[in-house]
Amino acid sequence: MSLVIVGSIAVDSVETPYGKIEKAMGGSANFAGIASSLFTNPAVVGVVGEDYPKEYLQLMKKKKFDISGLKTIAGGKTFHWKGRYEGDMSHAITLSTCLNVFEFFKPELPPHYRDAKYIFLANIDPELQLFVLDQVKKPKLVLCDTMNFWITGRRDALIEVFKRSHVVLVNEGEARLLTGITNLIQAAEKLLALGPSHVIVKKGEHGAFLLSKVDYCSVPAFPLKLVKDPTGAGDTFAGGLIGFLASKNSVSPADFRRAMAVGTVLASFVCEDFSVNGTATLTKKKMAKRLEQFCKISQIPKISL
Amino acid sequence: MSLVIVGSIAVDSVETPYGKIEKAMGGSANFAGIASSLFTNPAVVGVVGEDYPKEYLQLMKKKKFDISGLKTIAGGKTFHWKGRYEGDMSHAITLSTCLNVFEFFKPELPPHYRDAKYIFLANIDPELQLFVLDQVKKPKLVLCDTMNFWITGRRDALIEVFKRSHVVLVNEGEARLLTGITNLIQAAEKLLALGPSHVIVKKGEHGAFLLSKVDYCSVPAFPLKLVKDPTGAGDTFAGGLIGFLASKNSVSPADFRRAMAVGTVLASFVCEDFSVNGTATLTKKKMAKRLEQFCKISQIPKISL
Repeated sequence: MSLVIVGSIAVDSVETPYGKIEKAMGGSANFAGIASSLFTNPAVVGVVGEDYPKEYLQLMKKKKFDISGLKTIAGGKTFHWKGRYEGDMSHAITLSTCLNVFEFFKPELPPHYRDAKYIFLANIDPELQLFVLDQVKKPKLVLCDTMNFWITGRRDALIEVFKRSHVVLVNEGEARLLTGITNLIQAAEKLLALGPSHVIVKKGEHGAFLLSKVDYCSVPAFPLKLVKDPTGAGDTFAGGLIGFLASKNSVSPADFRRAMAVGTVLASFVCEDFSVNGTATLTKKKMAKRLEQFCKISQIPKISL
Repeated sequence: MSLVIVGSIAVDSVETPYGKIEKAMGGSANFAGIASSLFTNPAVVGVVGEDYPKEYLQLMKKKKFDISGLKTIAGGKTFHWKGRYEGDMSHAITLSTCLNVFEFFKPELPPHYRDAKYIFLANIDPELQLFVLDQVKKPKLVLCDTMNFWITGRRDALIEVFKRSHVVLVNEGEARLLTGITNLIQAAEKLLALGPSHVIVKKGEHGAFLLSKVDYCSVPAFPLKLVKDPTGAGDTFAGGLIGFLASKNSVSPADFRRAMAVGTVLASFVCEDFSVNGTATLTKKKMAKRLEQFCKISQIPKISL
């Protein structure tokens, strides 16, 4: 197995101007896993309660997840997030967060996970991210995500995670909160100076950019007329990006650029429907078609002044 | 002459975290004119007072502006805008606006302007924009800009301007205010349905996108580590875009994409210094170099999944 994803497995209840869902498949590891499964077989580390719906487990198996790292806690309840999106839907309004069994999550990697070359540390306590890094042997690419809660509450551990990661993934607000710098290019440079070789700043409907030690690239978002539910867009982006790189077993600048496009296009599919519906039903053919459209969007023909 | 620019000629007093200037060269026609002068000789229509500094007039002449459409009002004072930028500098805080002679601006085109094929109607009262359109004979491309003040106060006239223009230029807020639609792609489609063949939505540090009847393209902003003064960035973008198209005498989709890149890169130069300092000193060589860097930023190599 080449890709390990460590994150939350949840059930989400979400309301948007376009409808609502109750206890649908959710959690960073699921969103990233489903996205990556287009390219590779993700090995997931997570925890669920006894109530975790059988059909979600079946979908994970159908998508060829290795779930030997998934713990089911007898008598426990699965992490349940309830949220709403309004207006421009750029931010979720959290209505309730019941961590349940996720509160005591200890990401222990089964022995055969520890040789994995590609690791996605989704947004969890940085102390746990470090605990994962202590278990993996010689990863080629560690991608880490985080959130404002850890930036303010566990800063030192988080900086340590960044030092030991290859790719730091943040959104605009997190980049500014982490660095105290408004200018995003400067902020990304400051993050890069902490140790990772790549910093990716996600900007929602404005796309994302990648600053590495050797490259700078910017991708727009795929132009969607209808965003039904943006939940999991960031994790889908991350899962698509690292799943693609894992399938190529490459971290070259050219493949990173390709991976930025792949992640962005996958994120567009997840936004078009609730939960993982937009990505779980996605075929490589449909993906390739939108990817081709996407790559044309920013093409500038040769210019002579 | 191929390009006519109708807009304000002003003196600006601006304060940013990086310094301040007093009564520097400003106004939409100046910013757009200087940008376009890299490619063509812009014919300007505007009005100034007797106090308009000689050196600004000299710069206009040096940049080969046709200023036969520039009126000087004896005893009058030039439009003076005073503003400040704070924080992320994405919005100007207006401290004072003294319209002075600009209050009675009536854009009368000298006879030899009326055959111009490329017209930039910068942000002025839409009634005056219509007055200009009544004077031009058979333009190939009319680009119009506007602002929230006219969107709420002169809506009907503005819609009429859009109908008679080829390119409508708005920022995100204006696109939403005009259409009542949050989703920018949908908003741009609604604007396109009003009659123009192209809609350009400017997104500041997030770049811009173009939606035409036959194309969609998105460009990032040039990644600037330091924005000293964003005043005039939109007008510089517009002037660069239409100046480039005028110099090629082309409105093809490929040249529109090139023009989006040219406008964006010019805007990056103007943001790096106060007033028109970043563009007035710009050479084609320096421009070509940054343009080449810019076009690489969004290049995605061919992808096989």
